Amino acid sequence: MLQELFSPSVQHRLDLIGIFVFAISGALLAVRKNFDVFGIAVLAEVTALGGGLFRDLIIGAVPPAAFTDLGYFVTPLLAALLVVFLHPHVERIQTGVNVFDAAGLGLFCVTGTTKAYAYGLGLPQSAALGLATAVGGGVLRDVLANEVPSLLRWDRDLYAVPAMVGATMVAVCIRYDVLTPTASGFAALTAFVLRLLAMKYHWRAPRAWNRRSTVREE
Amino acid sequence: MLQELFSPSVQHRLDLIGIFVFAISGALLAVRKNFDVFGIAVLAEVTALGGGLFRDLIIGAVPPAAFTDLGYFVTPLLAALLVVFLHPHVERIQTGVNVFDAAGLGLFCVTGTTKAYAYGLGLPQSAALGLATAVGGGVLRDVLANEVPSLLRWDRDLYAVPAMVGATMVAVCIRYDVLTPTASGFAALTAFVLRLLAMKYHWRAPRAWNRRSTVREE
Amino acid sequence: MLQELFSPSVQHRLDLIGIFVFAISGALLAVRKNFDVFGIAVLAEVTALGGGLFRDLIIGAVPPAAFTDLGYFVTPLLAALLVVFLHPHVERIQTGVNVFDAAGLGLFCVTGTTKAYAYGLGLPQSAALGLATAVGGGVLRDVLANEVPSLLRWDRDLYAVPAMVGATMVAVCIRYDVLTPTASGFAALTAFVLRLLAMKYHWRAPRAWNRRSTVREE
Repeated sequence: MLQELFSPSVQHRLDLIGIFVFAISGALLAVRKNFDVFGIAVLAEVTALGGGLFRDLIIGAVPPAAFTDLGYFVTPLLAALLVVFLHPHVERIQTGVNVFDAAGLGLFCVTGTTKAYAYGLGLPQSAALGLATAVGGGVLRDVLANEVPSLLRWDRDLYAVPAMVGATMVAVCIRYDVLTPTASGFAALTAFVLRLLAMKYHWRAPRAWNRRSTVREE
Repeated sequence: MLQELFSPSVQHRLDLIGIFVFAISGALLAVRKNFDVFGIAVLAEVTALGGGLFRDLIIGAVPPAAFTDLGYFVTPLLAALLVVFLHPHVERIQTGVNVFDAAGLGLFCVTGTTKAYAYGLGLPQSAALGLATAVGGGVLRDVLANEVPSLLRWDRDLYAVPAMVGATMVAVCIRYDVLTPTASGFAALTAFVLRLLAMKYHWRAPRAWNRRSTVREE
Repeated sequence: MLQELFSPSVQHRLDLIGIFVFAISGALLAVRKNFDVFGIAVLAEVTALGGGLFRDLIIGAVPPAAFTDLGYFVTPLLAALLVVFLHPHVERIQTGVNVFDAAGLGLFCVTGTTKAYAYGLGLPQSAALGLATAVGGGVLRDVLANEVPSLLRWDRDLYAVPAMVGATMVAVCIRYDVLTPTASGFAALTAFVLRLLAMKYHWRAPRAWNRRSTVREE
């Protein structure tokens, strides 16, 4: 039942949209790093599929969906192709990309949590893996591009928190047995909107309590 | 039997201690890299659980312990919290952290080797995987922080060798069927003490035989 | 049958040769990065076994061959030892190393594709995983050495394309049920020769269509 939050075909279409927008973000970074067309394709694939691949390896769902469903594999290539030929336009519509990326974040944290729970993980771990599914591809993207993952940097707008909220909402719904498609959709929407707000108002997370370093407390 | 080197509850407590101290080292690096609180939590989790996660994926123990035992997952968060609020104090007690990290290294190389053998790997491979369990989290930590893994750098005190010695001792004990809890404890202790000595006396490994480059030998 | 493209012992020997030459390339990079002897050994292991390890995790062949066959594990150590003592000579014969590396690339893309298909992946995915097997070790090598993977850089001679061609040839042969040992050998040879030609004539892949950025098209 948990697998059928959305009808399979709707679920699949949502997955492909999330994969597509994540691939766009990977391909754009590759262009900025001056990679060649194959580097662009590789970074698009890794960004789009990395999070789900990690999730599937952890829960033992092998071969991972990324290697069984041809659509998952081809979609990032289309995104890469688009970026190779249209990247000035794609960059110009960076806002649009950010919106889609936020949508992908919302979708992936929900489907990641649900799939992890369906494979027998506990609820907190399912939420954690949902979060990892949503942000994992971006981390791999930045590692391959030899940059500090933007997930970890304090000078970037909140990214993990919206996904964390969405994943937690799903876990709570499962706990109280009220995970309807509507509830799932609402969780994804919440994560999506939170991420949009974080970008609009530049919400950032605090760093370690540095000031304490000048205070003696013993 | 091999699984019961220590009584399960003792084993579990030792694991948690190892996880805690590794998480501290990850969180401290995150503070130095100026990451926000979520980045600190992520780096703490990755450092503490990365080695064991890799081991469990290799031997097919999925879902990995890191995702089934809630204590494994929560402990790094506590360590991260501690570092966020007390990091000047934690840094001031860097020596203490190093000692605990050495203890974690000793524990993980022993439990990693034992678990790998219990899952059917050969002895040399079990020792290698025990070594990977002990050092893997630190390597992931450094890769995510976009630094050259300190494991690989020549200008750092020996880190892999103590773990290698501990893992090899365990493998030899298994080979001659004398792997008692005492023997395991002794192996962990040896690795621990070797690491302490390496830090105290700045033992370092040689680099490639550079001088030969000026010598013609044909 | 697919597993018996070559007689097992021939297959095994070819694997070891591929592992050896990849290990050499990892060890040489470690020397250039000034790593100590353990760092050299680690980078040799990772480069030689990383691609196959990734493939085996994806298809669920655990424990991976790298941890069951002792020869796979020891061979990179021998390569590392050789580099430690003879690296000026090894560097002097860089051309030779490149030729062997190209041979490894050819072999791994063929065996990777075949093994993936034998474990039930579809043909396009098998070819993709064959490609990942061939190039994965080199990517891990560069990530650990904190460099942008040379696979992704536009200013390097074609590397992925020869492997892609080889893997695709194998997939096409499987599709039409004509994957004889001869056909496999021919695919490996094609990838090998293409890589040699790419190095000789400095074939490079194009980057994104930058000029479009100065053109308005709406």
